[in-house]
Amino acid sequence: MADGLNMSRRIRRTPYTDRVEAAGVRGFSVVNHMLLPKAFQTTVEEDYWHLRTHVQIWDVSCQRQVEISGPDAARLVQWMTPRNIGNAKPGDCLYVPIIDDAAGLINDPVLLKLAEDRFWLSIADSDVLLYAKGLAIGAGMDLCIQEPDVSPLAIQGPKSEALMTDLFGSKIRDLGFFKFGWFDFQGTTQLIARSGYSRQGGFEIYLNDTVLGPALWDAIWVAGQPYNISPGCPNLIERIEGGLLSYGNEMTRDNNPLEIGLGKFCTLDGSVEYVGRKALEDIAAVGPAQHIRGVIFGGGPCPICATPWPVMVDGQKVGQITSAIWSPRLKANVGLSMIESSYEYAGQSVVVWAGDRQDRFGHVSDFPM
Amino acid sequence: MADGLNMSRRIRRTPYTDRVEAAGVRGFSVVNHMLLPKAFQTTVEEDYWHLRTHVQIWDVSCQRQVEISGPDAARLVQWMTPRNIGNAKPGDCLYVPIIDDAAGLINDPVLLKLAEDRFWLSIADSDVLLYAKGLAIGAGMDLCIQEPDVSPLAIQGPKSEALMTDLFGSKIRDLGFFKFGWFDFQGTTQLIARSGYSRQGGFEIYLNDTVLGPALWDAIWVAGQPYNISPGCPNLIERIEGGLLSYGNEMTRDNNPLEIGLGKFCTLDGSVEYVGRKALEDIAAVGPAQHIRGVIFGGGPCPICATPWPVMVDGQKVGQITSAIWSPRLKANVGLSMIESSYEYAGQSVVVWAGDRQDRFGHVSDFPM
Repeated sequence: MADGLNMSRRIRRTPYTDRVEAAGVRGFSVVNHMLLPKAFQTTVEEDYWHLRTHVQIWDVSCQRQVEISGPDAARLVQWMTPRNIGNAKPGDCLYVPIIDDAAGLINDPVLLKLAEDRFWLSIADSDVLLYAKGLAIGAGMDLCIQEPDVSPLAIQGPKSEALMTDLFGSKIRDLGFFKFGWFDFQGTTQLIARSGYSRQGGFEIYLNDTVLGPALWDAIWVAGQPYNISPGCPNLIERIEGGLLSYGNEMTRDNNPLEIGLGKFCTLDGSVEYVGRKALEDIAAVGPAQHIRGVIFGGGPCPICATPWPVMVDGQKVGQITSAIWSPRLKANVGLSMIESSYEYAGQSVVVWAGDRQDRFGHVSDFPM
Repeated sequence: MADGLNMSRRIRRTPYTDRVEAAGVRGFSVVNHMLLPKAFQTTVEEDYWHLRTHVQIWDVSCQRQVEISGPDAARLVQWMTPRNIGNAKPGDCLYVPIIDDAAGLINDPVLLKLAEDRFWLSIADSDVLLYAKGLAIGAGMDLCIQEPDVSPLAIQGPKSEALMTDLFGSKIRDLGFFKFGWFDFQGTTQLIARSGYSRQGGFEIYLNDTVLGPALWDAIWVAGQPYNISPGCPNLIERIEGGLLSYGNEMTRDNNPLEIGLGKFCTLDGSVEYVGRKALEDIAAVGPAQHIRGVIFGGGPCPICATPWPVMVDGQKVGQITSAIWSPRLKANVGLSMIESSYEYAGQSVVVWAGDRQDRFGHVSDFPM
């Protein structure tokens, strides 16, 4: 945490912000013009161990939904992503890269198929709604694109299934990974998915009524007491070790999905038509010039990574680190790094320049670190 | 300033952030995924009087440029706004509402016409680039849409012309309001406009090379010493008194340009084709149901307005305040408010509920307050 954040209506509060403040939030980030809690009373290290051991409640309302519905909905969604969504069924969640005409990444949302003609894109930090509206207006498609009153609350950690079973019944155990179902909350029907921005297991409740926010938070908080629940947020140590990427940090429009390990979600045989297909096929034909990789490096706990740090081999820059932090488990720093293809193999020795005028020695690593 | 802001690459630093930090910045906001300084060592009141008396240097790099160029550039830009841009000439700045197919506001940028086939949209806080790309891809237009390396630095206040003349020569005095020209800075050519987000007069330098940021800041800082220059930022008191609106605060996609006083920029006679024309004409035919107005109200200095506050007449809600602060000059609070058309007349008595359980008595006002 470096400086103060000035509040205004433009930086939107969430249905849970009152509770988050009561829980002692110390810092926020801003995602999709909305507050994302980023620090509470405990340290990132304490939160890391807690997340791996117990269960946490996260306000991730900033994962806004872009709802696309109508006769042309499936056609527009398919046009926006190289991933073939033709076999998706209602109840499926799909991680879908969205690219522009040059195959540059616009976002990396989770797609929720609600019905054959109704979808949510649960987005990272860019205005996908405006892109979708532009495409639809430009192409004269018949559909409705809006941001519904839906604010996800994440329950993450190894005890999340037990807690969610207490609250929503044993049916929740049948939910497969990246599947969603409909569950009762105080007489309302809510979408719950087995998903979340950690590798520790968990669920996301897509609450569809702002007014219910405090009641949902309180119900989970009370039910979570036997499981040692704590307020939390995406944990930087855990997500870097697990190789979870963040749009705007690890990737921008300067990157393509093949570079960030999403080749398996890219249709390259011409069987699906989407924006950027030609550009992506051209990149695939020669192979991407760089890949996202882990880097483990020393030199003591590193500073906050707010600008890309050079990754060096033999005095030449071969990549950049875009997120990094000290890992108490590995007793070294861990970073997410875009590395040139010739240097991307696990074990490759590198030097990291973290902006503090020292050579930090390390090596490239597979995920999870 | 309420809480900490967690830094990461996604919340982009600007060419001037190092200097802003050296100048003692205490708080930021986030606009277009970029840092906007919002508080320095002095109070908002002290900054207000300083801005009205001397000259200030503001890092407004977050006013990102969406560059649209190519054979279809003029056609796309016109399609994005109800304002007729047919008579604009290179060197003109135009305030252009951008609307969607329902006439909802997507942004309210300043358009800079660089050439017949090259434009910048200097944007408020939404990803206009993605909307423009969507429209262009959807409609199969032939053009290039990108965010160039351009970071505006604003010089605002009554002494700005004298300072700018010292730095860039007397030619700058010939620049009309909302016109731009090209000027030399250390052997480079930079776009300078007579414009800015205050009513105190001033200029914006659209620096086109990040590397030059510190040098430009330093040159202005040194030249500004005789004029009592200080680091600053858009001043909440000054902008509310002057009726300067902020996208995301006073307006969202739920609002149309007629409501926010931009009727004079809306072509309603069918002579220009643009997205949302039918919807806007329908609204114009019956007249907008509400208008942006000033409200002056008492009850002592109000809290920070982070959610809309009800504006009441005879126990009925007739509007909402979206930005408000204590004015030391008027010795009352000033607010920007969307007010139902029946109650929008200057002098209308209102009660404001600022979330602190008291009735604050006031009245509707024209701009400037």
